[in-house]
Amino acid sequence: MQTQIQNQQIVLANRPNGVPTQDTFEIKDIAMPELADGDLLIKSIYVSVDPGMRGFMDKGDSDAAGTKYELNKPITSRTVAQVVASNSADFAVGDIVHGRFAWQRFQSVTAKDVEKVDPSLAPISTAVSMLGVPGLSAYFGMLKVANIQAGDTVVVSGAAGSVGSTAAQIAKIHGCKVVGIAGSEKKTAYLEDDLGLDKGINYKTTENMTAAIAEACPDGVDVFFDNVGGELFDAVFANINNHARIAICGQIADYNNAEAAQGPRPMHTLIKKSARMEGFVVFNYADEFDAAKKQLAKWYNEDQLEYTETLTQGFENIPTAFIGLFSGENIGKQMVQVAELDS
Amino acid sequence: MQTQIQNQQIVLANRPNGVPTQDTFEIKDIAMPELADGDLLIKSIYVSVDPGMRGFMDKGDSDAAGTKYELNKPITSRTVAQVVASNSADFAVGDIVHGRFAWQRFQSVTAKDVEKVDPSLAPISTAVSMLGVPGLSAYFGMLKVANIQAGDTVVVSGAAGSVGSTAAQIAKIHGCKVVGIAGSEKKTAYLEDDLGLDKGINYKTTENMTAAIAEACPDGVDVFFDNVGGELFDAVFANINNHARIAICGQIADYNNAEAAQGPRPMHTLIKKSARMEGFVVFNYADEFDAAKKQLAKWYNEDQLEYTETLTQGFENIPTAFIGLFSGENIGKQMVQVAELDS
Repeated sequence: MQTQIQNQQIVLANRPNGVPTQDTFEIKDIAMPELADGDLLIKSIYVSVDPGMRGFMDKGDSDAAGTKYELNKPITSRTVAQVVASNSADFAVGDIVHGRFAWQRFQSVTAKDVEKVDPSLAPISTAVSMLGVPGLSAYFGMLKVANIQAGDTVVVSGAAGSVGSTAAQIAKIHGCKVVGIAGSEKKTAYLEDDLGLDKGINYKTTENMTAAIAEACPDGVDVFFDNVGGELFDAVFANINNHARIAICGQIADYNNAEAAQGPRPMHTLIKKSARMEGFVVFNYADEFDAAKKQLAKWYNEDQLEYTETLTQGFENIPTAFIGLFSGENIGKQMVQVAELDS
Repeated sequence: MQTQIQNQQIVLANRPNGVPTQDTFEIKDIAMPELADGDLLIKSIYVSVDPGMRGFMDKGDSDAAGTKYELNKPITSRTVAQVVASNSADFAVGDIVHGRFAWQRFQSVTAKDVEKVDPSLAPISTAVSMLGVPGLSAYFGMLKVANIQAGDTVVVSGAAGSVGSTAAQIAKIHGCKVVGIAGSEKKTAYLEDDLGLDKGINYKTTENMTAAIAEACPDGVDVFFDNVGGELFDAVFANINNHARIAICGQIADYNNAEAAQGPRPMHTLIKKSARMEGFVVFNYADEFDAAKKQLAKWYNEDQLEYTETLTQGFENIPTAFIGLFSGENIGKQMVQVAELDS
């Protein structure tokens, strides 16, 4: 009797209303894929789950790269994988790769949709965290959009998350005073003790966030790197200085709302403060990704930048890990390890 | 019997609730001022009334220059005046000057608070319109904040006003497609026929502004120069392109609201479109005022730029002219002529 290698995928079973639930997803047994010329068979190792994916689950919505999830089709996300069979001269069995792949144990991909991971830079999982979209978002958001300068007072919301923790550290590296906002004592301790931020504020136990920001930033806020939005935005915004720069990176507070959230219009304050709010997606800076990855890896290897992962084990637990993002439990990058690397 | 020269001032009699009324103001007979060393006695000729002044009538509010109106003290605004007596070596009787002066027929000012008007550039009233704060706001807002490029589709709200009409023409001069929004058929005719804009839209008779903007801008909106805010903002914002730049210059829709207006939060769209909203005050660019005035005057003298004034006659009608700004009757700069120039 021959042992059949098992393959599985996770599809979008139902479009979520608000926060996704287990019913949003369905795990299916599927056949091992055939390999066409130029294709690779890859085995998923580390699957990244990100709050921004929530938007692709709504009908007709799509991200900068044109991604949109279709019903009964597999979810895709940034994944680190290993080549287990190759019909491409550019990839060998055993190579580590990353890309936006389906939530499948095994899949065939065309060589052009795949990028090699350089294991000499940092641990391979960082290809989709510190050296991937989250780290690059932090890098370009801080340096290009917010244009941080030494001496700036910088506030980061979602500071214990994957983007926020990297963004906050980049600001520290550049000589800024950095205040991080997060949602638990464990997280604010991580911000202050592990990342060395000047102050961590737990918004869940702080009654008046506007006053708390004012107290933590007596000279006002020069840069706000916003991953959260909603009322946290308002509290930081009430404290901005003249010529403040607000980099809008994510809005996890709103991802599950069907309608555009209402809030105070910011225009008057933008005028009074000659301030700027700018949204961005990291792909605007694709030409500069390689240089940015090298810089991030350099800071990491010089112990100036650390990364933190919350690692869930098991392919079947990918939905749970994704859903957990919205209750704010993860510190650093939420990842799912679905297989061991073959050595 | 000697004829006494009459002097008068207009003070803030009551802080307005919402739109200012005649009761907001009071005209008082006052004595002619004494002149200290270095002072000038000036006679007001053209008084500018501007929507942004509304904010200074609220308690504790102040503009970038620290202006705030106090109860029973005269209102101040940008004014063109003539020197009728001088204790300063730098100014001669008959000189034309401008500055932020009190609403008074005559007043003494210190020489350092006064700037000479160069009558060779353009008609002297333009020192507080096309070549003053409104024109400079249009100039720096379009060129520095919105960073217009040839081929951009540009939408200007409040386009028939003093700032908007100049802003729209500057965008035309730079090879942009320009759509102006205004509040009457007379104004949209002015935009299309006099200023040569590509399209004027009357928001008061247009049921669905979002659709009207989409129709007028089939390639989307690259630059939005906003003087109005509120729901007009939302309608234009729904049509922005990737990398759109939104210069927030004024918010006349909100000036009479005590509380910050509520509206849809713009952050999601800013991210999706990698777009930027930036507020500004013209004094950020004070170092470049002289060069900008020369450029504006050059365009004017080359017939590339025209200015329009709505001129009210009579000192006692300054309050009426100011109040009228909020019912949107003026085309171009609303000015009040309070005296004739002595030749």
